Amino acid sequence: MPYVNIKITREGASAEQKAELISGVTELLARVLDKNPQTTVVVIDEVETDNWGIGGETVTRRRAEGR
Amino acid sequence: MPYVNIKITREGASAEQKAELISGVTELLARVLDKNPQTTVVVIDEVETDNWGIGGETVTRRRAEGR
Amino acid sequence: MPYVNIKITREGASAEQKAELISGVTELLARVLDKNPQTTVVVIDEVETDNWGIGGETVTRRRAEGR
Amino acid sequence: MPYVNIKITREGASAEQKAELISGVTELLARVLDKNPQTTVVVIDEVETDNWGIGGETVTRRRAEGR
Amino acid sequence: MPYVNIKITREGASAEQKAELISGVTELLARVLDKNPQTTVVVIDEVETDNWGIGGETVTRRRAEGR
Amino acid sequence: MPYVNIKITREGASAEQKAELISGVTELLARVLDKNPQTTVVVIDEVETDNWGIGGETVTRRRAEGR
Repeated sequence: MPYVNIKITREGASAEQKAELISGVTELLARVLDKNPQTTVVVIDEVETDNWGIGGETVTRRRAEGR
Repeated sequence: MPYVNIKITREGASAEQKAELISGVTELLARVLDKNPQTTVVVIDEVETDNWGIGGETVTRRRAEGR
Repeated sequence: MPYVNIKITREGASAEQKAELISGVTELLARVLDKNPQTTVVVIDEVETDNWGIGGETVTRRRAEGR
Repeated sequence: MPYVNIKITREGASAEQKAELISGVTELLARVLDKNPQTTVVVIDEVETDNWGIGGETVTRRRAEGR
Repeated sequence: MPYVNIKITREGASAEQKAELISGVTELLARVLDKNPQTTVVVIDEVETDNWGIGGETVTRRRAEGR
Repeated sequence: MPYVNIKITREGASAEQKAELISGVTELLARVLDKNPQTTVVVIDEVETDNWGIGGETVTRRRAEGR
């Protein structure tokens, strides 16, 4: 019954990688807290780099500066 | 003043259906808790089926298998 | 499979009222979008009035002024 | 270390405006609560006007009526 | 830089189990998407069973019925 | 009409500081994007340090080590 929301920048995660995140976090909750995998919901949000800030600046700017 | 966030998979909900969700949940909060409809905010997120997991797998895969 | 998050101020909603919100929004999603009620998840957050702002001020202050 | 999520309707905010929101809210948290700007995360969600409701109706409809 | 929010019912997860969820999901994101663990943020919300609904009813009621 | 959610660790923010965050972020959205302050909603979540992770460990542990 857990609900997990994963937010990452939209920088090319593949369908396979996203499926791996979903199975991995579902297994983690089953292993650590004995949560039922059948009702564990995982939602991945991919966010444009213009819309993600850290350190007071956008990821777009950080990427442009090679960070 | 309530805030409601509805997350569904992106599988063709029409503008009319989304408007019906918005009016329906606003009325529900007014009826049950006497919340002012004028300041009730509803945000609907439509999520790609690759990005939604349940039972440890993506909805994309479930749909491909006819589930 | 939808996920709904309802945020309200913590001002005395009863367990019965919260159960009514949960059943109501689950039925709404079944009726409008034919979503399976068995996997519809609803989470209600009750937020202290010091922590909820509208119009640039806290609900605590608004309530103190009879608004 | 704070996490801030800003949701606005998708109505033409520019990259510069979004960067200004990110720097502004990061500075606010540093000034008011002495939070470290280097680990403050800000995520902006721009939501279609069909998917945003207030007063029981969509923003699309409100805009069409000049509100 | 990812942000992960895990919502579970408040039913006795220990500090050690929560620490294990945090380290586990941080490692998962590093392994699958090469995300920097140092800036991965994880927030766990524990929700009262009165405030969590599935199948149109609260978890409180389901637990009372032995489900 | 914007909705802002600010998540911080529960480490003693005062009602005055939270009111200052609410007014500050509301003014920021009015200044940068001309958003109406009257319908801007801000919700602050204060999260236990056991439930907040960064760098793969809880804030509780980081604080215990003087970080």
